[in-house]
Amino acid sequence: MVEVLFSLKNVLVVSLAMNMCLLWQISYFYYYYYDDVDALRITSSSSFWNTSSWRARLHSPPPSSSSATHQNNNNNNNICLNNNNHDDGCHNNNNNKLRKTDENSELPPTATTSFSSTPAPTPDGGESRVINLDHGDPTMYENFWKHKEETTVVTSSWQHISYFSDVTNVCWFLEPQLVSAITRLHNVVGNAVTEGHHIVVGTGSSQLYQAAIYALSSPYVSGPTNVVSAAPFYSSYPLMTDYLKSGLHKWAGDANVFNKEEPYIELVTSPNNPDGFTRQDVVKGDKGILIHDLAYYWPQYTPIVLAADYDIMLFTVSKSTGHAGSRIGWALVKDREIAKKMTAFIEINTIGVSKDSQIRAAKILQTVADTCDHAHQKQSESFFDFSYKLMTERWNKIREAVNKTELFSLPYFPVETCAFSGRTFGQLPAFAWLKCEKVGDCESFLRKHKIHTRGGKHFGASTEYVRISMLSRDSEFELLTQRLPAIIS
Amino acid sequence: MVEVLFSLKNVLVVSLAMNMCLLWQISYFYYYYYDDVDALRITSSSSFWNTSSWRARLHSPPPSSSSATHQNNNNNNNICLNNNNHDDGCHNNNNNKLRKTDENSELPPTATTSFSSTPAPTPDGGESRVINLDHGDPTMYENFWKHKEETTVVTSSWQHISYFSDVTNVCWFLEPQLVSAITRLHNVVGNAVTEGHHIVVGTGSSQLYQAAIYALSSPYVSGPTNVVSAAPFYSSYPLMTDYLKSGLHKWAGDANVFNKEEPYIELVTSPNNPDGFTRQDVVKGDKGILIHDLAYYWPQYTPIVLAADYDIMLFTVSKSTGHAGSRIGWALVKDREIAKKMTAFIEINTIGVSKDSQIRAAKILQTVADTCDHAHQKQSESFFDFSYKLMTERWNKIREAVNKTELFSLPYFPVETCAFSGRTFGQLPAFAWLKCEKVGDCESFLRKHKIHTRGGKHFGASTEYVRISMLSRDSEFELLTQRLPAIIS
Repeated sequence: MVEVLFSLKNVLVVSLAMNMCLLWQISYFYYYYYDDVDALRITSSSSFWNTSSWRARLHSPPPSSSSATHQNNNNNNNICLNNNNHDDGCHNNNNNKLRKTDENSELPPTATTSFSSTPAPTPDGGESRVINLDHGDPTMYENFWKHKEETTVVTSSWQHISYFSDVTNVCWFLEPQLVSAITRLHNVVGNAVTEGHHIVVGTGSSQLYQAAIYALSSPYVSGPTNVVSAAPFYSSYPLMTDYLKSGLHKWAGDANVFNKEEPYIELVTSPNNPDGFTRQDVVKGDKGILIHDLAYYWPQYTPIVLAADYDIMLFTVSKSTGHAGSRIGWALVKDREIAKKMTAFIEINTIGVSKDSQIRAAKILQTVADTCDHAHQKQSESFFDFSYKLMTERWNKIREAVNKTELFSLPYFPVETCAFSGRTFGQLPAFAWLKCEKVGDCESFLRKHKIHTRGGKHFGASTEYVRISMLSRDSEFELLTQRLPAIIS
Repeated sequence: MVEVLFSLKNVLVVSLAMNMCLLWQISYFYYYYYDDVDALRITSSSSFWNTSSWRARLHSPPPSSSSATHQNNNNNNNICLNNNNHDDGCHNNNNNKLRKTDENSELPPTATTSFSSTPAPTPDGGESRVINLDHGDPTMYENFWKHKEETTVVTSSWQHISYFSDVTNVCWFLEPQLVSAITRLHNVVGNAVTEGHHIVVGTGSSQLYQAAIYALSSPYVSGPTNVVSAAPFYSSYPLMTDYLKSGLHKWAGDANVFNKEEPYIELVTSPNNPDGFTRQDVVKGDKGILIHDLAYYWPQYTPIVLAADYDIMLFTVSKSTGHAGSRIGWALVKDREIAKKMTAFIEINTIGVSKDSQIRAAKILQTVADTCDHAHQKQSESFFDFSYKLMTERWNKIREAVNKTELFSLPYFPVETCAFSGRTFGQLPAFAWLKCEKVGDCESFLRKHKIHTRGGKHFGASTEYVRISMLSRDSEFELLTQRLPAIIS
């Protein structure tokens, strides 16, 4: 009898999920095909154009169910409840999948609103303090770098004056020392193949994403090229694709439901932002081109199981070493012509990339590689040892906090062995994809408790979910883990 | 009789000029209204999209006559033949015009081709050496900065990690010390009013130009907003406006002939790139908004006659201090909502601007202001003294070289007294707008003589003209002034 009831319940759940899915499809269709003209415009009151007021019209995708990526903490069949630093021999149901980390540089879903109007944390640590974990500001790494004074960069005022770095390179504004540092670090970590790839540097990987969709959009198709990514997807992709109402490319939503016989670009973010799962492409059409966003494919977040060798791979120092303020990302690109077109985009957009930041990023990446060598010689702790331990500690703490209440749940991840560190562990994502089990609008619910997060709707997912940054300073993270289990309703 | 012939000749010249103007209008119309779909795409051979080859289709505007801004060196009625450092009492026919310097950051007209495929100068100084003066790489200033070791910047690896600079500012990624430096330098030089303006920092002023047209394009008009500038205009404006085939704005060409009853944005570049003349807006319609590009409104290039106080003013360190590699520009913006929208553009485009470069730019701008104070106290030479003397010397040399041959001519400028330096002088532009008097395609002609310049067609002007950078290193400039008078045919 219990089994029958359980089955019926399951059928009901599936049926409801399908209803929601259909509703979402309809609203999604309406949203993208009938209301896309001004969907992504950031406007506000102004006397220009004889318009008395311009209102913020930044839309976000309508709510949807998350696509089966979330595990309630009471439902973990065949998945290891593991984020500890040991191989517990659990069954690993994901062994054949390549784990990579997607690019998810920290653009807020509503542009100006999130960054500029969110109040800064107040100095008191009490209940009145707002904890802003909406964006992924990687200040957690500051403590490591405070002990690395040898990485200090000294720049004289006559240095790096020219626009040019190396006119013999496809990317003529790329500093040669950054090429060396990027190549060395990928070789040391083993997370990506650099041989046979051109390096293109960008002002963060947001610019590289835009350069890539510009380079890949066909000039000979009649309309703009479709850009898709499987939901839940990085909240900034739709905005970055459509904010200029480009005739070259358009955001076409969830890759899981894309079935047009048209050219498309699929973004594969792996591990994914917001939910942390590893991914592969889902559309499998014959008219598609892939961009692999591997911002988090580093050993503090995920086991490195294979050196990624895709056509276009995006990385950033913001997430690998924590230097978001430097705005340096890089792309590894197989096709020389695509690399040239990406370079051309950046040339038109910003005439190159800050040399000061390139020089600094080169020194930082070399230092990270040095610490790996030193750790190998057992002289000191590597950057990835430090950051892996910190991520493990934080994930243990947030799981402990969430398990004290029935209001929330977190995803669980299969474990794998990291070829770089030799450790066996599950994902330790830079964001916690938290689900409110008893509340429909999780973002608003947490905001009442002075915890600012980014709601699921921004990621093409259900409002029951929120994304919480795991990379904040210690004080904010501690306050989060204290406040979450204290919430009653 | 001589007078009648002279009058007939003048009428004929005017008639021919009108014919050329009409032809140019027709071709221009064709170019922008029937061939704009792929006009600005940078493509090349690729196997994507089942297309066997993608060709470079970067168009540039068709040839036109320059609009009466050029003075042949044999025809200087009421204009002083003056670029020397003295007030010679000549009649000044331009006293009532406000002189300003437009933004013309150095994007080449054909994107990838100019920067990446132009060979670097060879080490030999002989006739075989290519002199590349196509782009305005400001390496001339290197010598000044080599004696300013106190401007060295030291950055520890833990500094400037966060995305944020000042969340209380409209432009939340703007470093407070850069605000201080920009405000102080404008106050010292007296070239722009900062009070009542918001500062928005950009990755070079190219990004700020794009942010401004994004912010000013009306979301409620049916089509994209027209963007115009008086020819000859900066060669990158059309490309930066149209490369993404935006539905928000479109390049509408020469402001002198714009007469639509539609909203428009007019770029006023003063002093102008490429020809160096001071400018005011020309459309005078009631549906327009102005952007003032003042990249060269500094006392080494032009007499500072008034503190500019426009709605949107663009500046850049590339041209003011020569630090092009740092990619730092700034906008002074009166309207808070426009400043917010420009900030939003940069947030979506690159999530802020390199902090490393902002910190360095702040120190450099403060040093320039310091040298002005020291010069005022007669302790040492200011940056603007150094650069003014160098520009004067170079303009004297290039005029001397051009006057040795009848093949070329250069524009002449009226003189005015600089309120900052007290000197009376005519423009000393960062580019020489050279005219070939006996050749139709001046760019190709000079290229045969291994002098790479940018032809007039890229600026919406006649191919008889070329733009030559005056900011190169000494060795290249010396070679130019030796080679020009030696050219026979």
